[in-house]
Amino acid sequence: MDLSSFKAVADKYKFIFFDAFGVLKNAEGILPGIQDTFDWMRDSGKEFFVLTNDASRSPQALAESYYRQGFYAITPERIISSGMLARDYLDLKVHHGTVAYLGTANSAHYLETVDLKTLPISEVDLKDVADINALVLLDDEGFDWNTDITKTVNLLRKRNIPVIVANTDATYPTSKTRISIAIGAVARMIEGIVGKQFINFGKPDAQLFMFAYERVQEQTTGIGRSDILMVGDTLKTDILGGNKFGLDTVLVLTGNTQSDDADILIRSTGIIPTYVCDSIVG
Amino acid sequence: MDLSSFKAVADKYKFIFFDAFGVLKNAEGILPGIQDTFDWMRDSGKEFFVLTNDASRSPQALAESYYRQGFYAITPERIISSGMLARDYLDLKVHHGTVAYLGTANSAHYLETVDLKTLPISEVDLKDVADINALVLLDDEGFDWNTDITKTVNLLRKRNIPVIVANTDATYPTSKTRISIAIGAVARMIEGIVGKQFINFGKPDAQLFMFAYERVQEQTTGIGRSDILMVGDTLKTDILGGNKFGLDTVLVLTGNTQSDDADILIRSTGIIPTYVCDSIVG
Amino acid sequence: MDLSSFKAVADKYKFIFFDAFGVLKNAEGILPGIQDTFDWMRDSGKEFFVLTNDASRSPQALAESYYRQGFYAITPERIISSGMLARDYLDLKVHHGTVAYLGTANSAHYLETVDLKTLPISEVDLKDVADINALVLLDDEGFDWNTDITKTVNLLRKRNIPVIVANTDATYPTSKTRISIAIGAVARMIEGIVGKQFINFGKPDAQLFMFAYERVQEQTTGIGRSDILMVGDTLKTDILGGNKFGLDTVLVLTGNTQSDDADILIRSTGIIPTYVCDSIVG
Amino acid sequence: MDLSSFKAVADKYKFIFFDAFGVLKNAEGILPGIQDTFDWMRDSGKEFFVLTNDASRSPQALAESYYRQGFYAITPERIISSGMLARDYLDLKVHHGTVAYLGTANSAHYLETVDLKTLPISEVDLKDVADINALVLLDDEGFDWNTDITKTVNLLRKRNIPVIVANTDATYPTSKTRISIAIGAVARMIEGIVGKQFINFGKPDAQLFMFAYERVQEQTTGIGRSDILMVGDTLKTDILGGNKFGLDTVLVLTGNTQSDDADILIRSTGIIPTYVCDSIVG
Repeated sequence: MDLSSFKAVADKYKFIFFDAFGVLKNAEGILPGIQDTFDWMRDSGKEFFVLTNDASRSPQALAESYYRQGFYAITPERIISSGMLARDYLDLKVHHGTVAYLGTANSAHYLETVDLKTLPISEVDLKDVADINALVLLDDEGFDWNTDITKTVNLLRKRNIPVIVANTDATYPTSKTRISIAIGAVARMIEGIVGKQFINFGKPDAQLFMFAYERVQEQTTGIGRSDILMVGDTLKTDILGGNKFGLDTVLVLTGNTQSDDADILIRSTGIIPTYVCDSIVG
Repeated sequence: MDLSSFKAVADKYKFIFFDAFGVLKNAEGILPGIQDTFDWMRDSGKEFFVLTNDASRSPQALAESYYRQGFYAITPERIISSGMLARDYLDLKVHHGTVAYLGTANSAHYLETVDLKTLPISEVDLKDVADINALVLLDDEGFDWNTDITKTVNLLRKRNIPVIVANTDATYPTSKTRISIAIGAVARMIEGIVGKQFINFGKPDAQLFMFAYERVQEQTTGIGRSDILMVGDTLKTDILGGNKFGLDTVLVLTGNTQSDDADILIRSTGIIPTYVCDSIVG
Repeated sequence: MDLSSFKAVADKYKFIFFDAFGVLKNAEGILPGIQDTFDWMRDSGKEFFVLTNDASRSPQALAESYYRQGFYAITPERIISSGMLARDYLDLKVHHGTVAYLGTANSAHYLETVDLKTLPISEVDLKDVADINALVLLDDEGFDWNTDITKTVNLLRKRNIPVIVANTDATYPTSKTRISIAIGAVARMIEGIVGKQFINFGKPDAQLFMFAYERVQEQTTGIGRSDILMVGDTLKTDILGGNKFGLDTVLVLTGNTQSDDADILIRSTGIIPTYVCDSIVG
Repeated sequence: MDLSSFKAVADKYKFIFFDAFGVLKNAEGILPGIQDTFDWMRDSGKEFFVLTNDASRSPQALAESYYRQGFYAITPERIISSGMLARDYLDLKVHHGTVAYLGTANSAHYLETVDLKTLPISEVDLKDVADINALVLLDDEGFDWNTDITKTVNLLRKRNIPVIVANTDATYPTSKTRISIAIGAVARMIEGIVGKQFINFGKPDAQLFMFAYERVQEQTTGIGRSDILMVGDTLKTDILGGNKFGLDTVLVLTGNTQSDDADILIRSTGIIPTYVCDSIVG
């Protein structure tokens, strides 16, 4: 496996899409040394977005968590989260009634800007569901799994409504050695039980890339897909999605894919990044 | 769809295998009128077993719940549960150490007769797992889903051990209109997350039928597969499993499969019962 | 189920996306009466595109087949096929070498406009594959299934290259009562065998809708997603994809979804069209 | 990974179940040196069966191919093939009419001992199918894939009949570096297209082990599951199936699982053999 220097690679592109977790930060916080990379990008006139499947908090709240750690480059308008696609969907497709959701009050931010009533599943009364016109799965926290997942299944047996999954990831790391189950895995369990087809947003699906690409078009001129580089730590989301959208891709080894496994994983999945870099630092 | 009378069908066989839920009982209790059917079976010299994917309680405890409702025909030795296969597996394949489990203390009955230490996942210390040599998924109750399912995933990342699923059902009914998520659905979610192959017991898998068939051989003489009738309410477990094992099968319409849907379900799944009866009554 | 008149529905939108098979034509040819609908659209200033998963022929060849039947409204530039996405992918991501393909010479049209050598799998020499940098699955015809599918599997064991599936449909009708296996089903079989992740284009994936939407933006002004109506006969491709992209959707009953089944299919899949119309005629 | 000597392992058991391909033979023929192992088994009073998913030929024809290579230990009555389960199923469950099949005339041997008419799919007339009461998928050879697989799909749309898959393997090796697609992969493609549940025989399913175990009981006394050793080259069939049935298992490295990958495959699949041996020789 040929390892490239990130700056040498990035220099060939005008716009960079970064995954967040495993690329910019990990369970311990911001990755040491990335300030230098972002300074270089600013000085070289490279623009960037952060594309994340994290719908647990608003772009504002996500940006603040970088800010609090003394890293100021990630401003809210540079963050594109799959939660924003969920909100877009509701805006375009659900015109009245109540939206039920699984997730924290923070994650419900994505719904509250929509002109609909919102209701956590815990407050749903299964005898009075006629007004519920959509369900959104936002975050793995903020509800009781024993009771509220079962309640969700029973709601979907009573109401044939669209179900939107705002984060398709199955897990996320909580420390160097531990992981937690993300709402994406819970969504697939419920989907299997009720036998219905949910509407999934988030990498590798093209729609998040498209949303970001439309923003690039609005803010710049003359930038096509071949000018954009997607950087991620996960083959099945960041790299597969970036490749399919027609972008060149960089796999970094600071997150889900470890140095020892990268080669074998690329061969066994057939998901081939354009480049592999140790990290975005250096 | 031709409906048959259960007695007319059963009269052609010497031994009957009954599914429990949806055939003998439902969320309201024992099905009215089945006493008469069991009296007729006794008088006609028909033997029977109850084959159940319910590993939440021991055969003794399961039999008692019939007994308490005034129905005495179901004795413990006539009940064959997928939990018994889990115990057999441990007996044959795990010779020392600790077995961790998800389920109630009642369900752990199946493990306690084995010469191994048992430990609910809630009491597992993830820093001290070297002694854990198997994991058994028994029941959807008795643990905190938010913390213990995640703990299970992390255990399986640290220890490469066999995982036994003692109930492969995805759901079970809790009232006429509500269902709950069974441990089988949780097992499949965890299996997907860790990417490993679990050992699944329970209908439609042949092993439960084989276990029952071996008992038939021990207790009787001259009874072959063509003398046994499998009765169930669910195409994908009872009927598929019975058919594959070479038994004739009866679908009854008192449980999961409703009269209106039976025909379309048989056509769409390609799982074809030998007979369809309204119920085992009459 | 409330049936709507297609014209009454379409009148609320400015741009219509039509699926082809089951909407405009079937195994017998152009659907009788659609000329009147297209005349009305032209007179009302409604624009339209045809979005098809059919990558067996070029837009020119597809348009000619309508023309030959005396239907002139479908011009090549109005046809958007998943084959065009495959070509885009190769343009952006594969810069040299040979592209192997399964399909007819007609379907290879999509590859020939790319600056790469193309080679049908039948002509691949498995001892000399170092130059092959991509594989495209285009059409179910034009090759020998017994030998060339196995050859494809062996090629993918030797070369870790991107595999592009230009038609994800599993089947297509060949008469009122018969269907044929489409390349999408063959692709999924090969994907399962080699255990790799292919790059799938075609409805319900968002990328075909996005491709069409970008063309709408180029040709018109002031048309947003809420001005576009997607019309299709298949819940799992046309309607699911249209819904997810944020479009209003019409299910028509002239193709895959028959009048008797529409209601039960909508309930069982949870894929809910905005409207249901008998056909686009009338 | 600790490698054991096969004889040292086998010495602890009374009965050995061998997989055929990758254990006793490979694409080049009988594995050199196994004569010595079988001589030792005979002298030590170890009995054995060969358990194979190969339904392409009768036990007689399979045994002859060993015989022709000068290896006489494998007699027909020691061979247990998944085709025998297909025949059993038909014997017990299909009492009249015609059985259609995909496979060679040789593979149809398994059907011809049954009292039913047999008909290769190529000779089926889709306008006259009322008499066809079962379909058996036997072998990947003996039919034209382009026409006969499509014909099979259309037959299953007209007739709701049981479909028996006599070999669930997806591929088989044809040389050191090439593989062919086995009927199991074709079966899963057809199953996906028609949306029906097929009846699958063959490892890892318990039924083949049970069939062999019943024969052991008939021929010997006092042999339980803990006296039987299953030897195979494939984790997902031989080892998973043997483990689940309660047998101790040996993974050998002469077939599908190569020395370099064994450790990582055991960890990633969670399928754990009791022992690993280089081969059954030595």
